[in-house]
Amino acid sequence: MRSLMGLIKPNLVLLRAKRFNSSGSTNPAMMFPCLDKMERVSEELRTTTVGTQGQNEPVYGKVKSGFEIFKSNRPFYTDYGGVLPNFQIAYETWGTLNEDKSNAILIHTGLSASSHAHSTNLNQQPGWWEKFIGPGNVCLDTNKWFLICTNVLGGCYGSTGPSSPDPADGLPYATRFPMLSVHDMVRAQKRLINEHFGIEKLYASLGSSMGGMQSLSYAQQFPSEVNKVISVSACARSHPSSIAMRHAQRQVLMGDPNWNRGFYYPTAAEPNKIPPHVGMKLAREIATVTYRSGPEWESRFGTERLDDERSPVLCPDFLIETYLDHQGEKFSLEYDANSFLYISKTMDLFDLSLSHKERSIRRRARAKELYESGTLNEAQDPLLDRTSDKKRHRTSTVEQSYQDLKQGCKPLLDNDVLVVGVKSDGLMPCLQQREIYSLLDGDTNPNVAHVELQESESYFGHDTFLLDLEHIGRSIGQFLCK
Amino acid sequence: MRSLMGLIKPNLVLLRAKRFNSSGSTNPAMMFPCLDKMERVSEELRTTTVGTQGQNEPVYGKVKSGFEIFKSNRPFYTDYGGVLPNFQIAYETWGTLNEDKSNAILIHTGLSASSHAHSTNLNQQPGWWEKFIGPGNVCLDTNKWFLICTNVLGGCYGSTGPSSPDPADGLPYATRFPMLSVHDMVRAQKRLINEHFGIEKLYASLGSSMGGMQSLSYAQQFPSEVNKVISVSACARSHPSSIAMRHAQRQVLMGDPNWNRGFYYPTAAEPNKIPPHVGMKLAREIATVTYRSGPEWESRFGTERLDDERSPVLCPDFLIETYLDHQGEKFSLEYDANSFLYISKTMDLFDLSLSHKERSIRRRARAKELYESGTLNEAQDPLLDRTSDKKRHRTSTVEQSYQDLKQGCKPLLDNDVLVVGVKSDGLMPCLQQREIYSLLDGDTNPNVAHVELQESESYFGHDTFLLDLEHIGRSIGQFLCK
Repeated sequence: MRSLMGLIKPNLVLLRAKRFNSSGSTNPAMMFPCLDKMERVSEELRTTTVGTQGQNEPVYGKVKSGFEIFKSNRPFYTDYGGVLPNFQIAYETWGTLNEDKSNAILIHTGLSASSHAHSTNLNQQPGWWEKFIGPGNVCLDTNKWFLICTNVLGGCYGSTGPSSPDPADGLPYATRFPMLSVHDMVRAQKRLINEHFGIEKLYASLGSSMGGMQSLSYAQQFPSEVNKVISVSACARSHPSSIAMRHAQRQVLMGDPNWNRGFYYPTAAEPNKIPPHVGMKLAREIATVTYRSGPEWESRFGTERLDDERSPVLCPDFLIETYLDHQGEKFSLEYDANSFLYISKTMDLFDLSLSHKERSIRRRARAKELYESGTLNEAQDPLLDRTSDKKRHRTSTVEQSYQDLKQGCKPLLDNDVLVVGVKSDGLMPCLQQREIYSLLDGDTNPNVAHVELQESESYFGHDTFLLDLEHIGRSIGQFLCK
Repeated sequence: MRSLMGLIKPNLVLLRAKRFNSSGSTNPAMMFPCLDKMERVSEELRTTTVGTQGQNEPVYGKVKSGFEIFKSNRPFYTDYGGVLPNFQIAYETWGTLNEDKSNAILIHTGLSASSHAHSTNLNQQPGWWEKFIGPGNVCLDTNKWFLICTNVLGGCYGSTGPSSPDPADGLPYATRFPMLSVHDMVRAQKRLINEHFGIEKLYASLGSSMGGMQSLSYAQQFPSEVNKVISVSACARSHPSSIAMRHAQRQVLMGDPNWNRGFYYPTAAEPNKIPPHVGMKLAREIATVTYRSGPEWESRFGTERLDDERSPVLCPDFLIETYLDHQGEKFSLEYDANSFLYISKTMDLFDLSLSHKERSIRRRARAKELYESGTLNEAQDPLLDRTSDKKRHRTSTVEQSYQDLKQGCKPLLDNDVLVVGVKSDGLMPCLQQREIYSLLDGDTNPNVAHVELQESESYFGHDTFLLDLEHIGRSIGQFLCK
């Protein structure tokens, strides 16, 4: 499917470029090659037969292979009151599980990653943490540890997600998929750990960004079933600014008419439906700003344009714009739009507070009750136009809210915890990792360690965890061996 | 036109809310009231007769009135090689011009503002800087100063912009409007100052955000025609991160099918065209994140949802989301989409460097030549698919680029300059105001003053200049009287 983008020749784009009324105007009319290109992609997608053969095999599912599958046939009740009658989790492993099963480390991924953290015999492509894993590696030494990485529940790289069939009718769940939480992802992983591997206690739960939320969640939900906890560039609860940025991404994607409220998967009846590739591209461009920006961009792109002698255009023109355009386009057909929406939302919803935990337990119990009585799908959650509701300001104070969070973090107090932050990160700013340290009584609790990378040490912003083996990788390696 | 939003009753929205396949699914299907609402707005716009009476009177033009108009009938050549055969500038004034015309202060606006900085007899609505202006005011004392504020060239509140008729055929320019620069806006204002008011030297050139760019530009282009320069929350050249955020806004707007490459104004032939209100709403939501975010949001919204007991939804759900949704919707029919695109781009392009200035002078001369020979509209600027160009990294070093900027700032060295920055500003971060100070040899140049507001002093992010009379207003007032 990726090669589709290669079909679209620049000269073809130029040939069909639209000009409006140029001859009668005072100035030359502007051209929009970026829009021409997107229209061309839509046309190609519409006329390509991919996706019509098997209605439950969306195209991006074919991008990845080489993972193992764990299937669970017992119902899974979600934190927000839904159910999955069954589910599967894609996973990969590296290293060898020792005899007493005490050397397992669960690696949690960020939003859009697959289980492929490192190359394997089944999939020899480099993984997303290729440099951080290997025999004798300063970060994750496969001679010592047995590493497990999963594609999260809700994802589209082998695990059950919105593109998977709803057992009720065999059609893709789409937006009939139940709302998820980061805690749900972790409980699904725990079945794999316990039921498939027979591991009772992880040596470590480790992750960055949304993975760092999962590592904390594992310890909050099952404190006695994990030894060490490593959380990089994450938080105990999302910041409203991060929610705002993800909100923008989701609304943009949902605004693409091809998204069709989530029902864009080709079916036998409508084989020519196409994914919302324009919305995905735009959403990824916004996301990329939050992942990178930072000082890197100044030295890499500055404010240079592709060509200072040309008249500026509204399509990509500055180097930084062409970079974003390219990043967006690459991603636009690689990841399932609904998976993106659901998982993005779980990050907004992530919250370690006690009240949040208690509500989730109540809702899971209620979902079980309704599902077992066969009435879950009738549950009404009438959505009025919420923006016209009168509530516009928070009802709890900052201090009350902090205390609620502190209560929720109590189970982690006996775990060994490493919290890592990066100064140039605008999405999960350093104050959030300092908050975790404070919630765990870092100043007086010898179990908690905190590392903060200064700008001089790393300048890739939020994405530093993907790139900086020297500071991030080494800190993790040292903490694991402590 | 604004009242159109009032027509859309929440209960109507609910009645037509779409549900897909809910009865056959495992879980209840999700609903999308926010999308229902946008579709309803489109329907209302399509069936409303507004806009069909005069094809050159776009709806938002009716929102504002009460300004004066200055018309210039000599051609205006733009920095990027276009021409306006004639143009008009909307402006308002406060206070009295003294006899020797030495007390005039030109107030420059940010991106989306009108000339209405303060209430007048003609328009008694509060202006966007209402608190900062008045007799005896700590910031702008109308007993002392004669204040002039314009709607910028390219705008849609009375000044010539993309919604104005192209004299070549009488139809709206749309995207046949020539690309603008901040320097162009200033040269247009200068005609008003010189030709209408007969003012030879401004007492001060003053502005915030894009207005702060204009105030610097005035002094760079006409150093001997302005005494004091005040630039708040602005920069000498945009940062790639700011360009990235504005790029995202523009691409989202251009992705709305109703934008139609700029040709969305209703005409006699196509009276039912509607403006790209969804794209504008989304663009404004992204912009709002860059204008505010900051510590304010934590204390105002935190991570509270409208209702913790309801299942989360992909439509606005968190307080911060409903705030953004509301801000976006308010703006979506208030401002011309093309004006937004052009003016947003001028901020990206703003650059005080010498090489930039020299290129602009060359291009204006070339435009004059082509226009006078009647061949400007044939000028070819072939736009290839620039994203596939090979240039991906900057060609000048950070240091070379800085020196170019320093050369360009030389004309300002003899002006009295005040530079103000705000710690919580993510869009025009403090390092950019410190850069201006450094470019003007602030450490050794007694003419330059620098004020930096700490987070404790103001926490509204970039928008602090609109709200903080105490720190920003008072600093300006003191500097003016110095």
